[in-house]
Amino acid sequence: MLEHFHVPEEDEVRIMPDALRKTVNELLLKIGFSDQDAWQATDVLLLSDTRGVDTHGVSNMMRNYIRMVAEGFVNPTPNWTITRETATTANVDCDRGLGIVVIPQVMKLAIEKARDTGIGAITMGNGRHAGMIAYHAMMALPHDMIGYAITAGGQAMPPTFGAEPRLAPNPHAWAVPTDKEPPFVLDISSSSLAMNKLTLLRRMNALTIPGVMAESDGTPIMDEREVPDDAFVLPNGGTRELGSHKGYGLSAVAQIFAGIL
Amino acid sequence: MLEHFHVPEEDEVRIMPDALRKTVNELLLKIGFSDQDAWQATDVLLLSDTRGVDTHGVSNMMRNYIRMVAEGFVNPTPNWTITRETATTANVDCDRGLGIVVIPQVMKLAIEKARDTGIGAITMGNGRHAGMIAYHAMMALPHDMIGYAITAGGQAMPPTFGAEPRLAPNPHAWAVPTDKEPPFVLDISSSSLAMNKLTLLRRMNALTIPGVMAESDGTPIMDEREVPDDAFVLPNGGTRELGSHKGYGLSAVAQIFAGIL
Repeated sequence: MLEHFHVPEEDEVRIMPDALRKTVNELLLKIGFSDQDAWQATDVLLLSDTRGVDTHGVSNMMRNYIRMVAEGFVNPTPNWTITRETATTANVDCDRGLGIVVIPQVMKLAIEKARDTGIGAITMGNGRHAGMIAYHAMMALPHDMIGYAITAGGQAMPPTFGAEPRLAPNPHAWAVPTDKEPPFVLDISSSSLAMNKLTLLRRMNALTIPGVMAESDGTPIMDEREVPDDAFVLPNGGTRELGSHKGYGLSAVAQIFAGIL
Repeated sequence: MLEHFHVPEEDEVRIMPDALRKTVNELLLKIGFSDQDAWQATDVLLLSDTRGVDTHGVSNMMRNYIRMVAEGFVNPTPNWTITRETATTANVDCDRGLGIVVIPQVMKLAIEKARDTGIGAITMGNGRHAGMIAYHAMMALPHDMIGYAITAGGQAMPPTFGAEPRLAPNPHAWAVPTDKEPPFVLDISSSSLAMNKLTLLRRMNALTIPGVMAESDGTPIMDEREVPDDAFVLPNGGTRELGSHKGYGLSAVAQIFAGIL
């Protein structure tokens, strides 16, 4: 992680994973999750924190998930259904369930399909926040399979040359099993910076990084200052000369696969 | 295209596609390609030029292909074979055939598999230059299918923080059919700049672009000067702060799928 995103030592609160796991699980049960779903959501959040992905861990996301359930945006007891299915593919309606609950269950189905046919690909709709998507891709690893997960949603990133945010910094994650080395895991947003990193910077009172964020009218922020409340992230590459159309394109691909499909 | 890569008007040689198609086809027959293979290779080269992808068209690549055949690096009469096959997947040995000849034939097989099972995925080995990979992905479009093509090879790009080139600026291409709009086609190298763009810049005596290339020892070139003969390209993002690890990661993914697999 860039030094910029490290929580300053004096602000750190260090908790042993098992203690955090217990608390998070209890909070999720409290807001109406089933035993199984609370376990699953907790497992995703804890893997994020223990892998060092603070942006998608407990401190950054738990408050949002609780708010989303309170506001009725997230259904704490989703009854997800398969709306279409072939031997290799399926389409799932998530019933407004949280992604960190529903996606791992659907990923199991994709793994079964891959075991049967060589490849399994499932699209999902009507779901909520997917969490650290590396979790879902990594589920393939113990089965000696390659996992790939993408998600899309929101309007937080202006396209290259754009003034208005029309896309999200949609992430792509690949997990590839290995023999003797640790597995290959790549989880990247299509922006220079994940959107949650802006939240993290604001929480830490850290300054902007030149060339990766834009003001609300799309103007790139090229100096160091407080992170504006209405800032957006720029596509990976930053400027057209440096390749921002590639980040824009990767976001559009995720929008097609995880949005339109 | 960036203005930087436009051939200056006084250097332009404009040729009607049909005339160019005829000449290229004759050249390929002359170096030993079969009628069918010469037609196929010509079609890939011509689509590159007519789509404005000068880097992968006749002027930039034809001389290389002729040299590669003369040197015995490319087999002009490849007898490609399927080495493993399932209903959804296959593995192909290209017999040192040129990618622009073999890949379209293999893509047809992938399309048949996708028609039968929902998805078709084929890996290929022992092949030579893939050309503009958008061509292969775009073959899916008339079948109302999504196409995805990647290729890997060579050592022309240092990893983020790296001093030596250990990866190629491996490209990824997606083609998605649409209803009323033109199809969505994205073909991007994982570097800020395709390697062939360096050749193009040298041919045009154009200057370096700061932040996208490196000297032979991996040092980023941050000024405008003649393009050094031993320059490398940098991963998309340029620097770690701007996200070069994402270009590095995309290249590694292509290396795994199109290289190791």
